[in-house]
Amino acid sequence: MCGIVGYIGEDQAAPFLLNGLEKLEYRGYDSAGVAVYNGTSLQVAKAKGRLKVLSEMINGGRDVPGTVGIGHTRWATHGKPSDINSHPQVSDSGKFAVVHNGIIENYLALKDLMVKKGKVFVSETDTEVVAQLLEYYYKGDILEAVIKVIHKVEGSYALGIICADDPDQVVAVRKDSPLIVGLGKGENFIASDIPAILNKTRDIYRLNDNEIAVLKRDSVLVYNTDKEIVTKEPVHIDWDVSAAEKGGYQHFMAKEIMEQPKAVRDTISPRIQDGKIVLDKITLTAEQIKRFKKIYIVACGSAYHVGMIAKYVFEKFARIPVEVDVASEFRYRQPIMDDKVLVLVISQSGETADTLAALREAKNLGVRTLSIVNVVGSSIANDSDDVIYTWAGPEIAVATTKAYSTQLAVVYLLAIYFADKLGTITAEEYSSYISQLQSLPDKISEILANKEQIQYLASQFFNAKDVFFIGRNLDYAMSLEGSLKLKEISYIHSEAYAAGELKHGTISLVEDGTLVIALATQDALFDKMISNMKEVKARGAVVLGLTTKQNKKIEQVADYALYVPELCEMMLPSLAVVPLQLFAYYVASMKGCDIDKPRNLAKSVTVE
Amino acid sequence: MCGIVGYIGEDQAAPFLLNGLEKLEYRGYDSAGVAVYNGTSLQVAKAKGRLKVLSEMINGGRDVPGTVGIGHTRWATHGKPSDINSHPQVSDSGKFAVVHNGIIENYLALKDLMVKKGKVFVSETDTEVVAQLLEYYYKGDILEAVIKVIHKVEGSYALGIICADDPDQVVAVRKDSPLIVGLGKGENFIASDIPAILNKTRDIYRLNDNEIAVLKRDSVLVYNTDKEIVTKEPVHIDWDVSAAEKGGYQHFMAKEIMEQPKAVRDTISPRIQDGKIVLDKITLTAEQIKRFKKIYIVACGSAYHVGMIAKYVFEKFARIPVEVDVASEFRYRQPIMDDKVLVLVISQSGETADTLAALREAKNLGVRTLSIVNVVGSSIANDSDDVIYTWAGPEIAVATTKAYSTQLAVVYLLAIYFADKLGTITAEEYSSYISQLQSLPDKISEILANKEQIQYLASQFFNAKDVFFIGRNLDYAMSLEGSLKLKEISYIHSEAYAAGELKHGTISLVEDGTLVIALATQDALFDKMISNMKEVKARGAVVLGLTTKQNKKIEQVADYALYVPELCEMMLPSLAVVPLQLFAYYVASMKGCDIDKPRNLAKSVTVE
Repeated sequence: MCGIVGYIGEDQAAPFLLNGLEKLEYRGYDSAGVAVYNGTSLQVAKAKGRLKVLSEMINGGRDVPGTVGIGHTRWATHGKPSDINSHPQVSDSGKFAVVHNGIIENYLALKDLMVKKGKVFVSETDTEVVAQLLEYYYKGDILEAVIKVIHKVEGSYALGIICADDPDQVVAVRKDSPLIVGLGKGENFIASDIPAILNKTRDIYRLNDNEIAVLKRDSVLVYNTDKEIVTKEPVHIDWDVSAAEKGGYQHFMAKEIMEQPKAVRDTISPRIQDGKIVLDKITLTAEQIKRFKKIYIVACGSAYHVGMIAKYVFEKFARIPVEVDVASEFRYRQPIMDDKVLVLVISQSGETADTLAALREAKNLGVRTLSIVNVVGSSIANDSDDVIYTWAGPEIAVATTKAYSTQLAVVYLLAIYFADKLGTITAEEYSSYISQLQSLPDKISEILANKEQIQYLASQFFNAKDVFFIGRNLDYAMSLEGSLKLKEISYIHSEAYAAGELKHGTISLVEDGTLVIALATQDALFDKMISNMKEVKARGAVVLGLTTKQNKKIEQVADYALYVPELCEMMLPSLAVVPLQLFAYYVASMKGCDIDKPRNLAKSVTVE
Repeated sequence: MCGIVGYIGEDQAAPFLLNGLEKLEYRGYDSAGVAVYNGTSLQVAKAKGRLKVLSEMINGGRDVPGTVGIGHTRWATHGKPSDINSHPQVSDSGKFAVVHNGIIENYLALKDLMVKKGKVFVSETDTEVVAQLLEYYYKGDILEAVIKVIHKVEGSYALGIICADDPDQVVAVRKDSPLIVGLGKGENFIASDIPAILNKTRDIYRLNDNEIAVLKRDSVLVYNTDKEIVTKEPVHIDWDVSAAEKGGYQHFMAKEIMEQPKAVRDTISPRIQDGKIVLDKITLTAEQIKRFKKIYIVACGSAYHVGMIAKYVFEKFARIPVEVDVASEFRYRQPIMDDKVLVLVISQSGETADTLAALREAKNLGVRTLSIVNVVGSSIANDSDDVIYTWAGPEIAVATTKAYSTQLAVVYLLAIYFADKLGTITAEEYSSYISQLQSLPDKISEILANKEQIQYLASQFFNAKDVFFIGRNLDYAMSLEGSLKLKEISYIHSEAYAAGELKHGTISLVEDGTLVIALATQDALFDKMISNMKEVKARGAVVLGLTTKQNKKIEQVADYALYVPELCEMMLPSLAVVPLQLFAYYVASMKGCDIDKPRNLAKSVTVE
């Protein structure tokens, strides 16, 4: 998390920095700050709270003079959100200012060292130690000092650095945290993500780990840690900045929910040609697919929930055993892997720190990797043997919706593709699955057309304290996502449970009026779900049932019912998740929550 | 769940029935009831609430005359707890009375049929349909009617039946729910579990599925569904009834927590001889163990949490990939299995319905099975290819403690045994693991000796609304159990989360003063846990850290710290779970909760 920007040019730096940070606020919004060289020294302005607090404090940036600067929007890891813990962090003498995204893992030891050398620390951050180290090692050459510092620090970082003794450059370096360099005319930029610089340039460099960029007004040179120049190819960005605007919706989340038919269509359509699934950029051959005896799916958050569904889908269609793991767990598990294993990673941003580390761990073990990613050219996309992109476009709301739906669509494409190569489905099934996949966008639209019904249900429950989601198998996997969606934006403590497991303890939390959302889309498990719904009703729960249109008999048990159109059961999660997204959205909206930027959260989790 | 009893003899039936139900109250306590033939008709008494409500209503049974009767203590599945939904359920004319443990899955269709035949229903239960069907099919021979009924019903059942037209017999039958027949002199008994009849007899029959027992005063005959007599061998029970008494503790749960050193020692010691692990009743050969390419662990509730730890233990020690699954999910997943798979099931009671069904599913697929069970001769023990018993003794508190600890001890025994056969550990490691295993009971005692410290911590937090448990890998698996323990008896909404995953949504629920219990017993992950603790502290959380004695530096971050003795990391969950059990116990005690019989819960979950 955290977003960083930097500017060097002829214009006033601070207004650009604030503008760029605004585009990065999805990466964190606990505090914000800028540091600019004002002609004699580094001038720092920072404030706890949203960016607009800072912006008002410095009059939209106009109160801070100077044409070289760096800025930061923070998601707190070390030290509470406060003015003093905000970035930029400066060195003892005020000579260096640093913005940082990531975590310096050995900062305590380095801090001890610097304290022994006489440096005085003022914040609780891990970042301050970087500023102090730079000052300690600086002997007139920033690049030299940066190289010494990155040899000392362990952890992850994207750093933007300016120095009062050498004020005509911005230096940037990254490891395991994203950073790009924007290439302008007479001005150059750094940023954690492209939208921050898109009103200035569409030409960028993507920095690799431990490449150091030295930006001057008229040049950008990139060095390796041996001080050798690295030749970089600029990348041209051709996507549309208006896609990152709200377009009339009150929240990005609402806009992104409504964009799902298009996003799913954009993801599926180009991959189906003449009734066949074509994944032409995939280098995996049918022979290689046949060698896989196991698939590990590794992801975090909602992408992990996609993986939970993918397990059923791959096992059913392709009959390959699948193990799904949270990336932060997988990394430290010493998983048993060999060359008959495929590691499939899923990430919206392509920068999720734990997922990226898990991917690299797999690669180190010589295991074949495939990624499902939304951001072209992101670290995960670059590092995978194969990548399939979700064409969801930029997702701004912290709570994912269209990225989830498109990831799921890719899972279906891939599982059916594998099944076809493996001969585990017939030609008729293959055709049928493809045509059902093609029907997804219209069926999602059908659900969205009735969103007022869900708004009404939300109005009945928005003051709930605790909510339980229950389901079996596919419905359980989906209930995980429904529950996360609700809790992350509405702050209601919701929890998903395998319906048959509730009675082994958690049912003791059900009391009169507790809302239980019961997912029952699978025919073979419908009667079992009816029994589980009765169990919770017998304890006083109010039950909201969700099933397909033919299962009207759910109304005999459920207090409220929601229906989704008919579809092949394996694909029903693509439909059933939509009412759950809408429910979470409307509940949070009625509670007056800050939907696009929930408390404590940030998009694109680039710390571990 | 639910407990049933039945009596036929020369004494007054009702006092015995109440006494037996008291021993079965751990199986459910929503309501209770008895039906006794009073010389002219069936007299029914039943009441919502605990057994003592009924007992007071009928003056300890003395107000209900008659020497043939059945009784029931209920855990509600179909229909709210109420007088009318209590068992026994009687047929339209009052001729048949039935007590039932289980679920009749097709009761709606059968109810429709009986309504068409003119029967009038008064309750919402699935059981009433059994009474009505019996009356419908009865033509002077109860056995004949019972056979017709069990051919009609689908689902699970243990049934006790009496009939006013034929009052000198009690008929009983079971399928997928436990039932035993007690053999007396001039009197005979039925019960869901042995303690109910132990003050009368120690000789029993265990009924198999669809065996029908016809009890008269001087005989018990068992029939199959072809009306042929089945020859049964009586089983003699030799364990001590005093083990099922509280022994001076306020709650069974406290007693059972304190019994853990003994229970773990009883489980481990007989299996270690001359420095070697001896599992002499196990028929698995080293050659068979070498063939296993995968272990599925299937269980419910706390036993599932043991399985989560077992995954790490087996993968680390024996290098066999393990997949852990909730039994109610596994059954319907169509898992990919072959003859290179071992299915390991874990159950305290040996009667857990979903686990038993999963075991049978595995057997049907020809897969080798092994069970870890606490109750000798239980269905799961009987149906497994091999069984290893946990010698925990009777566990009465609904929230498991000593069963969990002994299951974990068996996991270590088994994993080290496998590792030795497979050669994945050295002789030195083998000896070291065994001696560390033997040190477990003393180290658990050491923790229990400091229980007042945990009582103090509980006094600081017992009014919490929401609690989060976080940990990584083994600590995550253990946090699942810590969280379940707390929520099931204190009704605090606690939730366990992989520490690295919290920031992908759930951290939005953390606010000023939220209690986060952070488990950090593994050295390699200690620094990562420190980072995660800082993350939640930065959002205002109060952190209670749990680690080993050498990691005192946890106090630099945690607000409160708990320590367990040093031990091989893989075995630390056996120690670290103990403070979590005590914490849950004291919190629930301070809240005044009914600790041994929490709201909505029952032990031995024999419904799905």
